[in-house]
Amino acid sequence: MKLYYSAASPYVRKVTVTAIEAGIDGRIQQVPTAVMPTKPNADIAKDNPLMKVPTLVTDDGQVLYDSRVICEYLDSQHAGVRMIPASGPDRWRVLRWQAMADGITDAGLLVRYETVVRAEDKRSAEWTAGQMAKVNQGLDMAENDSALLSGPINLGQIALAAGIGWLEFRNVAGDLRKSRPKLFQWYEAFCRRPSMQATTPKG
Amino acid sequence: MKLYYSAASPYVRKVTVTAIEAGIDGRIQQVPTAVMPTKPNADIAKDNPLMKVPTLVTDDGQVLYDSRVICEYLDSQHAGVRMIPASGPDRWRVLRWQAMADGITDAGLLVRYETVVRAEDKRSAEWTAGQMAKVNQGLDMAENDSALLSGPINLGQIALAAGIGWLEFRNVAGDLRKSRPKLFQWYEAFCRRPSMQATTPKG
Repeated sequence: MKLYYSAASPYVRKVTVTAIEAGIDGRIQQVPTAVMPTKPNADIAKDNPLMKVPTLVTDDGQVLYDSRVICEYLDSQHAGVRMIPASGPDRWRVLRWQAMADGITDAGLLVRYETVVRAEDKRSAEWTAGQMAKVNQGLDMAENDSALLSGPINLGQIALAAGIGWLEFRNVAGDLRKSRPKLFQWYEAFCRRPSMQATTPKG
Repeated sequence: MKLYYSAASPYVRKVTVTAIEAGIDGRIQQVPTAVMPTKPNADIAKDNPLMKVPTLVTDDGQVLYDSRVICEYLDSQHAGVRMIPASGPDRWRVLRWQAMADGITDAGLLVRYETVVRAEDKRSAEWTAGQMAKVNQGLDMAENDSALLSGPINLGQIALAAGIGWLEFRNVAGDLRKSRPKLFQWYEAFCRRPSMQATTPKG
């Protein structure tokens, strides 16, 4: 399999952590890919018109994106315990946790794009405040969700850890150790997993 | 079930079309909800910290978001033909089509937010051009994907029709009848479905 890859992307990390936890990362060839909303990338555009990482090309030539589709695909390719429960309330809960974590990360990315993509005089304090409200309310909900912060590994936890790792890497959400101590304690413990150690963001 | 709802949202429309096609729209109570990235909404924040529609509260009290999670849940609640194939290449293809359609719609929303949320002097032509490239390349790929534009209804088609309906409603992507004639012909035929007729965007 071929994975359009960036070592800084939280969504790529969600995929690579899932692959490592599933024991199938050895089947994936990483293709370093630089993407930025204001810079078209013709290489990835051939496979993904949205020009976003992660994008996966499977061994039988199917092109899959975005990270949610790829993670569910990878989770179907191993014989271990599933990161996404097959059915019932547990499935919906894990998928909602993933959506919450992705939503926090999406909002954080929009906050960062506001500074790295725009000239200083084009930045909107109202836009940033609106996105930061989503980040902060999402983190508050995670801080108080003891079911999310316990139990066996699942895709909701992976998405949350990848998102927090990126917020820390880009210093978007301040000192989580102080502001969300339960969440941060969980995150620090989760980061000890080899899958997280092998995927520390860079770039 | 309770659905936080906006008659203008393409993602709400994806959910309501899915519910109608599944024959379970009568079980859903719509709660009109005004959301905008720069305006916090405390009502929906109680259930969804991201403050986004659609958000669903199920009869047994589970809160589900975003639209992908809700659509898959609704698709598990009826006895008819599934909008998302259960497994195999067909499943990944439909989920990738949905991701492509959602990506087009996301980029279109960011283009629109650039004008409706920001003061004129805070708008970035580079940002808008970057997002429009995603919209246009996505529409070009759809125009040339004969498998997507044929065959039985699925969630990829629903997401695409809801997205195009919104692009038309907000006049984001120009005259699709001229620029993507095959796609537009498919869209016009799809719009004759009662589920689409009942969910024309307003607001």
